[in-house]
Amino acid sequence: MSLEIERKFLVNSEAFIKEASSKVRIVQGFLTKDPNRVVRIRIKGDEGFITIKGISNENGTTRFEWEKKIPINDAESLLKLCLPGIIDKTRYEIPIWKHLYEVDVFEGDNEGLVIAEVELENENDSFQKPKWLGKEVTGDSKYYNSQLSEHPYKNW
Amino acid sequence: MSLEIERKFLVNSEAFIKEASSKVRIVQGFLTKDPNRVVRIRIKGDEGFITIKGISNENGTTRFEWEKKIPINDAESLLKLCLPGIIDKTRYEIPIWKHLYEVDVFEGDNEGLVIAEVELENENDSFQKPKWLGKEVTGDSKYYNSQLSEHPYKNW
Repeated sequence: MSLEIERKFLVNSEAFIKEASSKVRIVQGFLTKDPNRVVRIRIKGDEGFITIKGISNENGTTRFEWEKKIPINDAESLLKLCLPGIIDKTRYEIPIWKHLYEVDVFEGDNEGLVIAEVELENENDSFQKPKWLGKEVTGDSKYYNSQLSEHPYKNW
Repeated sequence: MSLEIERKFLVNSEAFIKEASSKVRIVQGFLTKDPNRVVRIRIKGDEGFITIKGISNENGTTRFEWEKKIPINDAESLLKLCLPGIIDKTRYEIPIWKHLYEVDVFEGDNEGLVIAEVELENENDSFQKPKWLGKEVTGDSKYYNSQLSEHPYKNW
């Protein structure tokens, strides 16, 4: 259980790919997208997870998050119960200075969308911005995965 | 992960109490009550659980159910995220012949309601009905805990 502090950005080039330290496929769905109590089922590589996210503070940077690893077979069964709009993406991890950027390259109905996130220790933690980082979209709900599953990028 | 086969009944006397083999307090809430994908957080005695229930078959006896034990502190935090309408009840377990009846005595907004459930091995499994068993309410959604939390017995 933790309070998540993260900043979210668009990505303006594929230059991040050659800096990546890892790459993994993520398939995820939602049992509820209610922003006060999001419940997400995720398969990341060969691991399953259930994650529950609570309300954000007003600028969208701090959010309650609870996550538990579950057997991948359970995750596959639970994905079948999820709301329509399964998200499929590839996640690259890119260490920059003392932080780890996660860059998600979306597929399917969200193809063309590339989003970078960096998790900070506190709201005043300073971090380096790589050249491929674009416009900040922290707190913009249309970039939440829960929203992308209902209102995908191809319909924007 | 399992398919649940259960029959549900009202209870017409307190005679079950002296036959009970165990008694435990249960406090529970819901992250979503969508009947296709119910997500429940429960504290049972000193243990925490997360449970996900899928759709029923048409007569309401068979239902997908997935449950995982979680730390009680996590369950307490997750209960705070739940939808309004926390359920508070005492559960008695009563072994009768080869089955175990669970009788829930509700408190708070559902005080006065007493419901018995028996889980069967398959839809044709025979079972004994004790004298304190009343009208069958299997499949009647108003007796679902998810519904009782929104439309409590005191308002019926």
